[in-house]
Amino acid sequence: MITIIIIGSGNLAQHLIRSFLTSKEIDLVQVFSRQKKALSSLIDSSKIIDNLADLALADLYILAISDDALASVSAQLPFENRLVVHTAGSVSIDSLDKKNRRGVLYPPQTFSKNRTINFNEITICLEIENEADYPILEKSALVLSDKVERTNEEQRKALHVSAVFVNNFVNHLYQIGNEICLDNKLSFEILKPLILETAHKVNSLSPNEAQTGPAIRNDFQTIERHLSFLKEDNQRNIYKILTQSIQDHGKKL
Amino acid sequence: MITIIIIGSGNLAQHLIRSFLTSKEIDLVQVFSRQKKALSSLIDSSKIIDNLADLALADLYILAISDDALASVSAQLPFENRLVVHTAGSVSIDSLDKKNRRGVLYPPQTFSKNRTINFNEITICLEIENEADYPILEKSALVLSDKVERTNEEQRKALHVSAVFVNNFVNHLYQIGNEICLDNKLSFEILKPLILETAHKVNSLSPNEAQTGPAIRNDFQTIERHLSFLKEDNQRNIYKILTQSIQDHGKKL
Repeated sequence: MITIIIIGSGNLAQHLIRSFLTSKEIDLVQVFSRQKKALSSLIDSSKIIDNLADLALADLYILAISDDALASVSAQLPFENRLVVHTAGSVSIDSLDKKNRRGVLYPPQTFSKNRTINFNEITICLEIENEADYPILEKSALVLSDKVERTNEEQRKALHVSAVFVNNFVNHLYQIGNEICLDNKLSFEILKPLILETAHKVNSLSPNEAQTGPAIRNDFQTIERHLSFLKEDNQRNIYKILTQSIQDHGKKL
Repeated sequence: MITIIIIGSGNLAQHLIRSFLTSKEIDLVQVFSRQKKALSSLIDSSKIIDNLADLALADLYILAISDDALASVSAQLPFENRLVVHTAGSVSIDSLDKKNRRGVLYPPQTFSKNRTINFNEITICLEIENEADYPILEKSALVLSDKVERTNEEQRKALHVSAVFVNNFVNHLYQIGNEICLDNKLSFEILKPLILETAHKVNSLSPNEAQTGPAIRNDFQTIERHLSFLKEDNQRNIYKILTQSIQDHGKKL
């Protein structure tokens, strides 16, 4: 049995709590949250603490808090030489206070309230400072998912940047699609099957193979029609840059 | 019973053939294809013609061919005053030869070989030149999907441009994510659950609500880290422009 304490109460913390509570191999000893209420529906209130001084002993402390808070919260931990990991994609392991043994458990996924995430589909990326701590971190991660990979900091950063492209930026393109629909009295609903099919397609085809549309076809007539249709400079600018990029990529293939 | 002839043998034509063949309300009389073989597994070979002069009589002719070929093929049709529609998102109804009664049947979806498309989830967008032809076009479209909308040319163009953003451009961002993974010896597989979750999320949240990441949080530290991580000018350029656009949108909300 591995004893774990989670520090944080945001979306990722809540998903981790739910997942660990279903496991027989994990004893979720405590959760630290400044707002006890945020977690009251998830876990027995006797396990929720709001004072770092009350932290119990555990094999693994998981900091699922905002990037900015990692340095200061890890420095405030009232103990030394224990295994403390963060869950951030782009923060160095070194931003954790070095009085403890450090690591990273990074799940490259977007976590929201009201959406159930199947951790088992996510590749959990691990980093560890002391080799001796790896087995316990790996065992804990394997409770969340069968897909566990040991990555280095450079790879984790690469994943985080990629995630910005395929998640944050993609969602922004949905936002622009929505905007164009609204401006033309069309429901965004119409685009949803296309959005889903686009995502599902790269499950069976590579993004190179899946690329279609006027840019990759070098269909300059359609591109011109689209640019004269778009009235907002920002939309036109994004259209031009992504079209150019698709065409440049096409030449390299 | 509505009699239909499809002209074309590409992805969309094949999906339409499959769908119409399953309907008892449609008699798919013929399909025109320059390469008869392309369709031989789909439909009885006696119904495939490769000479426009052999076209039979039908209630509706659907041109599922490339945008560029619409004007010339519609001009070559050896008859007049029949109902002829195209399936293109960005081509005016007027590019069809005016000797026939014209219309548009546009399904905003991406069609590929080897992927089954459920037409019933797609909103079929219709346009018609002569009001009297609408019922037969609508009835044919309702065989494909319960979701049929009458749009005007401006709306169809808007949908087509939106589709470029949420499909072609989104796929290109997948391509860049893939590139960054490969450059760092990571499998693109790791990003697939994130890609799917991002698409599924906007089924229940608006794109504005679903927006997360360093740009919308104005997390300049992470943005700087990402920009110094990215080495390719094109990737940096796209990162900057989409980050700026997310931040500008955030201010307006």
